[in-house]
Amino acid sequence: MKEKESLCDAPIGVFDSGVGGLTVAREIMRQLPNERIVYFGDTARVPYGSKSPETITRFSKQIARFLRTQDVKAIVIACNSASACALDALEEETEIPIIDVVRPGARTAIEATHNGKIGVIATEATIKSGLYKRYIEENDKCVSVVGKACPLFVPLVEEGLWEDPVTDEIARRYLVELIDIDIDTLILGCTHYPLIRSTVGRIMGEKVALVNPAYETARELKRLLEKEGMASAKKPELGTEMYRFFVSDAADKFREFANSIIPYGILSAKTVNIEDY
Amino acid sequence: MKEKESLCDAPIGVFDSGVGGLTVAREIMRQLPNERIVYFGDTARVPYGSKSPETITRFSKQIARFLRTQDVKAIVIACNSASACALDALEEETEIPIIDVVRPGARTAIEATHNGKIGVIATEATIKSGLYKRYIEENDKCVSVVGKACPLFVPLVEEGLWEDPVTDEIARRYLVELIDIDIDTLILGCTHYPLIRSTVGRIMGEKVALVNPAYETARELKRLLEKEGMASAKKPELGTEMYRFFVSDAADKFREFANSIIPYGILSAKTVNIEDY
Repeated sequence: MKEKESLCDAPIGVFDSGVGGLTVAREIMRQLPNERIVYFGDTARVPYGSKSPETITRFSKQIARFLRTQDVKAIVIACNSASACALDALEEETEIPIIDVVRPGARTAIEATHNGKIGVIATEATIKSGLYKRYIEENDKCVSVVGKACPLFVPLVEEGLWEDPVTDEIARRYLVELIDIDIDTLILGCTHYPLIRSTVGRIMGEKVALVNPAYETARELKRLLEKEGMASAKKPELGTEMYRFFVSDAADKFREFANSIIPYGILSAKTVNIEDY
Repeated sequence: MKEKESLCDAPIGVFDSGVGGLTVAREIMRQLPNERIVYFGDTARVPYGSKSPETITRFSKQIARFLRTQDVKAIVIACNSASACALDALEEETEIPIIDVVRPGARTAIEATHNGKIGVIATEATIKSGLYKRYIEENDKCVSVVGKACPLFVPLVEEGLWEDPVTDEIARRYLVELIDIDIDTLILGCTHYPLIRSTVGRIMGEKVALVNPAYETARELKRLLEKEGMASAKKPELGTEMYRFFVSDAADKFREFANSIIPYGILSAKTVNIEDY
């Protein structure tokens, strides 16, 4: 009994290549206000989206090992590139539940589409993995999926050009082929993209539903914790730190960006030498 | 005598966070056609320009250790961010000569300026280090230096938008403050930037001299090798590999980009787990 209680009190581990996964953490904070979070952003090796599956998997394993040292009860891979490349490997070496962002996003898109034409925009690594396409088409034979890598979106978001003619122009170039084939549902398949949601929405037009996997990922996590009897039933006691943030580099810069995304105020971020794990 | 000869035959080690340093390697190939080169690109952890001095230094030390295993006779830091952050640390722990790209570029700029106003465009890490400014102003008290970080240039170059209205627009925004203060010399303080030299030149106007540190770095290397009696007097024997390329990730993608920069054809690139060094 005691053990079960302390398991419920344990935090959720959430990780990303950098700051993008904070959009997922934010959604977990909203939907699961009793849960503590330990967030890790791999800011020393960001970005993942342009790197190979082998490297992304090696990095993700190191992070999962670090999160285990923080006694997390579940791990959320809040990075599409890591979800697409490293999920199987992580599930193999970790006994606690692992939630990725790709499968929840894919399921929402299947529910949302009417004409059976879904688009996915994401990093090169996520698109190359083909995981969204495979997972959706396996689950619904009547749906077809077209993916488009948008490598400039992450640097544009990190430069703060969320509403800017340059971002408009680049988005138009990336999205034209998805408009041409008349998709009615578009997955924002990179955790940075919700931050330029309004630009993407304006270009795609009102008839296209935008799917943000962060929302569905948090719901999935909630379902899982309840099913396994691992959910925290109450707010942690006064004095317990709800949210802890770790990065592999430049904690100050992380904190600054994070505070523009997370409404709760990030008191501190600690630096970890992730290569040691 | 034998030892000296084999030292002359040893290759030059050249490293960068990724592909940008190939513009420096290319210049060394041109100016020192008898020298063999071992190139390392840290493609698993690229870019460096947005990361902290401590992390850049740790990465650079690992690479220098790897290059020593390849019996190089000198090391060229073909990355402005690493030159600006890690030069002192590398010189401390390495006995062979080390050439950086910042000091040669700075010296050329001092020679080039007439009105004593020099601009530097570079990554955030290089600008924050203040090394160009410090080095130039120490060497010529009549010169003033203004630096401007241009974080989007590297992703734009890597996306292949070397000649593009978007790159024009971003360049105009970055460069306007340097035009306003009437600089007559501009250092291209990141190894990617020579690839958008014509865009930068068009915006700055004909009266502004553009300094590419790669050229002066290769000259500096030549002087050093000759002074130390370490220069290779003849082409390597038939069957010796002139240029060898190593990366920490995605060797295929590296080879593709590299072949668009290096006119000599890159036969192969090998992957190294750099975190082991």
